[in-house]
Amino acid sequence: MSHLPAIGFIGLGIMGKPMARNLLKAGFSLSVSSRSKEKMDELAREGAHPCHDYSELVGRSEVIITMLPDYQEVRDVVLGPRGIRPYLRPGMIVIDMSSIDPTVSIEISKQLAERSVHFLDAPVSGGEQGAIDGSLAIMIGGDADPVQKCMPIFEALGKNIVHVGPVGAGGFTKLANQIIVALNIAAVGEAFVLAQKAGLDVQKVYEAIRGGLAGSRVLDAKAPKLFQRDFKPGFRIELHRKDLKNAMEAAKNLQIALPLTASLQQYLTALCNQGEGSLDHGGIVRFFERLNGIEIGKKV
Amino acid sequence: MSHLPAIGFIGLGIMGKPMARNLLKAGFSLSVSSRSKEKMDELAREGAHPCHDYSELVGRSEVIITMLPDYQEVRDVVLGPRGIRPYLRPGMIVIDMSSIDPTVSIEISKQLAERSVHFLDAPVSGGEQGAIDGSLAIMIGGDADPVQKCMPIFEALGKNIVHVGPVGAGGFTKLANQIIVALNIAAVGEAFVLAQKAGLDVQKVYEAIRGGLAGSRVLDAKAPKLFQRDFKPGFRIELHRKDLKNAMEAAKNLQIALPLTASLQQYLTALCNQGEGSLDHGGIVRFFERLNGIEIGKKV
Repeated sequence: MSHLPAIGFIGLGIMGKPMARNLLKAGFSLSVSSRSKEKMDELAREGAHPCHDYSELVGRSEVIITMLPDYQEVRDVVLGPRGIRPYLRPGMIVIDMSSIDPTVSIEISKQLAERSVHFLDAPVSGGEQGAIDGSLAIMIGGDADPVQKCMPIFEALGKNIVHVGPVGAGGFTKLANQIIVALNIAAVGEAFVLAQKAGLDVQKVYEAIRGGLAGSRVLDAKAPKLFQRDFKPGFRIELHRKDLKNAMEAAKNLQIALPLTASLQQYLTALCNQGEGSLDHGGIVRFFERLNGIEIGKKV
Repeated sequence: MSHLPAIGFIGLGIMGKPMARNLLKAGFSLSVSSRSKEKMDELAREGAHPCHDYSELVGRSEVIITMLPDYQEVRDVVLGPRGIRPYLRPGMIVIDMSSIDPTVSIEISKQLAERSVHFLDAPVSGGEQGAIDGSLAIMIGGDADPVQKCMPIFEALGKNIVHVGPVGAGGFTKLANQIIVALNIAAVGEAFVLAQKAGLDVQKVYEAIRGGLAGSRVLDAKAPKLFQRDFKPGFRIELHRKDLKNAMEAAKNLQIALPLTASLQQYLTALCNQGEGSLDHGGIVRFFERLNGIEIGKKV
């Protein structure tokens, strides 16, 4: 593949659509498939080839990219009875860029290897804005050769591109990332619940601590919005809940105990049941606010 | 006090001694008192006046600074039967720079106010190196007037100096800071236990995530040392345990629930009982390693 490989893109959601658009802009021949005729038409107007079945999509492509909600959808699309598998040709590459349980990625990879099809797991971080700007962080798991061949694709989609290890390594890295982000947001929640309840000016507390060891991307990105009560997504709590669910699935498969992540996953479930799942994940602090009947930033 | 106030300094430990030294260098008249004759002699050679009783120390001073292990020592020294209280004169200022339960600071402040003595709580962050370099972050609680008068003192000791609010505000801010730092270290611990157990190259995981929303001072300060198995303190786990104990004391007094901090405080107690209390607090990850019988960074 010294030329740009022809790509088939499956899953034109909040992330997938702008990613597909960036591939078109970079000059890739792109076939698309989505349950939504509207989204297919939209991308067709920008130069994509809309496909109404997977036979056509796979037939036109050398690389298939999936960007789907969770592992069930990925497994269905790749391995399911109405999925792409029957149409895949030896030497093709399937890249799943969804955020799923990496043990499922490893399982899919093994099944595709039986048909001499390469599989990469390449989840991303950076959210909708990163997808639009083509500035996603991309964490890749898979064999060196297909990773190398797909580098022009990754470069059209993101900035910080790291080949972490074999299949599954991308997903495990994403889970590690999401554990840290969720716990860092929760830490901000508990710290500022204490400060608020103690009657402090939380803005001054933020100024006093942000330059020290407590400083973080999460603190700077989420605390000012928290004080303004701005929880507009961004990345939704219900999606972060899914990531922590997948982290605990992976932990179960690896037989390890992650007690804080396990607790936090329960708290996010509670928060979703309390109707807060569509808030930005900075709203994870709402769990600690509700628990204590207070609002951070409210004048006392 | 347009001149530099004469200072009495009580508590010449790991933090107190270099702080006292920086006050001498800045030109303050300094009287010192310590249980250790050796430390008193050392500072006497550098120009401090060694005092063998609090009557003399207080008599020579306009401002008293305490830098002690925990609230028991602060309460003893300030209010106890053999403490400084009988010698304090109206208008004097007592600054406690220890890290203690701020509800105790508020109690001490009230008792001193009855004798027209001002009290400030001004805990610091930045560790031994910050104390030596005079680059501590200082979080101050107290009335504006004595805070203003003591600003030359704070400026000789630190860089990021924030007057957060009334007495107790310094301590609550420090507790909020320590909650965030401890939970951020724990987050790194759980994330990298997952990555290690999944067989990943943890250095590559670190490179893949440090530039994104998972990025933090803690991640950059502690992860590389973790991979090198370097837990030389720095700030000891047993001291961070004390801070979380004080955070939970404060939470109890404020009647709030901080479930993750409560769990982590228990984990740090366990870690200290397992003989790891004298490690750097980056070693909080050891709890999650021991829990799962693995070492992060070990080749697998």
